[in-house]
Amino acid sequence: MSNVRTNISISLDGYVAGPNQTQEDPLGEGGERLHDWLTRLRVWREASGMEGGEENVSSAIVAEGNANVGAEIMGRGKFGPAARGPWGDDPWRGWWGEDPPFHKPVFVLTHHEREPLILADTTFTFVTDGIESALEQARKAAGDQDVFIGGGADVINQYLAAGLVEELELHVAPILLGGGARLFDGVGPDLRLEELRAIEAPGVAHLRYRVVN
Amino acid sequence: MSNVRTNISISLDGYVAGPNQTQEDPLGEGGERLHDWLTRLRVWREASGMEGGEENVSSAIVAEGNANVGAEIMGRGKFGPAARGPWGDDPWRGWWGEDPPFHKPVFVLTHHEREPLILADTTFTFVTDGIESALEQARKAAGDQDVFIGGGADVINQYLAAGLVEELELHVAPILLGGGARLFDGVGPDLRLEELRAIEAPGVAHLRYRVVN
Repeated sequence: MSNVRTNISISLDGYVAGPNQTQEDPLGEGGERLHDWLTRLRVWREASGMEGGEENVSSAIVAEGNANVGAEIMGRGKFGPAARGPWGDDPWRGWWGEDPPFHKPVFVLTHHEREPLILADTTFTFVTDGIESALEQARKAAGDQDVFIGGGADVINQYLAAGLVEELELHVAPILLGGGARLFDGVGPDLRLEELRAIEAPGVAHLRYRVVN
Repeated sequence: MSNVRTNISISLDGYVAGPNQTQEDPLGEGGERLHDWLTRLRVWREASGMEGGEENVSSAIVAEGNANVGAEIMGRGKFGPAARGPWGDDPWRGWWGEDPPFHKPVFVLTHHEREPLILADTTFTFVTDGIESALEQARKAAGDQDVFIGGGADVINQYLAAGLVEELELHVAPILLGGGARLFDGVGPDLRLEELRAIEAPGVAHLRYRVVN
């Protein structure tokens, strides 16, 4: 069965990026610390073309999170720096160089039309007619596999508020950011969740929930 | 060794009470759901003079949280309803009736002087000269035992921001409140925490942290 799911690293005070995100500092002030638990792992370093790294309880959780994902939806703010408006003549090609780590169709939510961008085995399709259209396209591309809502906070919040996410995993980092992009902003009290599991791992707690409809 | 510690139930969106707290609804809209994991437990029901209830992983964690606590500090907003100002001629005597469940010295932070209130084996002392004075008095009263910062959010946030808390446990309820009293507001990014453990239990995840100085 195809699921719509998301997982994201979050600070104890509820932020998935720090304040003042810029092109030089895409996760905002202190935001890199959200991923300290992840970037030390071999499974992450390998996917990023780096050697070394450790194996721990989180390794299996990361592998699980990546498995069976057939398409990803992200906001323009995850695809590129905070600058908005038309894409221009020399448009941004993503943060990830010529061989992005997705290896699957990616749908980028934006208010500005743009032709698809193909980089190695990742195709970025730019969707201007809203989150439901993006989900429909992603479901079609994913086939029997899951659709992953890749962030940022705004996009995840929109999908959660619309009741379109089925599974949510939070990687709770033992840090405070004091400001930034807040997960669950505007999602409201009506979203019903069921706790599926809580797993302790070095420098992080993995909390998984199912959305109850 | 005497520790200063706190533990509190928190929603996934970071609130420890819902919006619109009133005398009739002291935990705000939806706030009672924060404690669904707790009020089903025998250990909680016994302490509240009720029969029945279940035993699960949370039972030991609640017992642990209550053990070795020699004094509690709370805000006026935990002691009584949101109304502020002088205590008046017929002052509020707490939410808990004539036999409050504390059985230890309690220090209530307030801007308005008041004589101590003795109810069964609980003495409420009203402290008007700030959080450090309250902590000093509570430490003296607790002796070798721990001091518990009992909330609400404001009081915990003040003690966290001042670097005066040594251990913090969050009982993460699988709910969203969409508004209310936010833990960590104003605490800022400089508080360094170390994850001590994460425990899965029915309807809650228990996350414990040590403050690193």
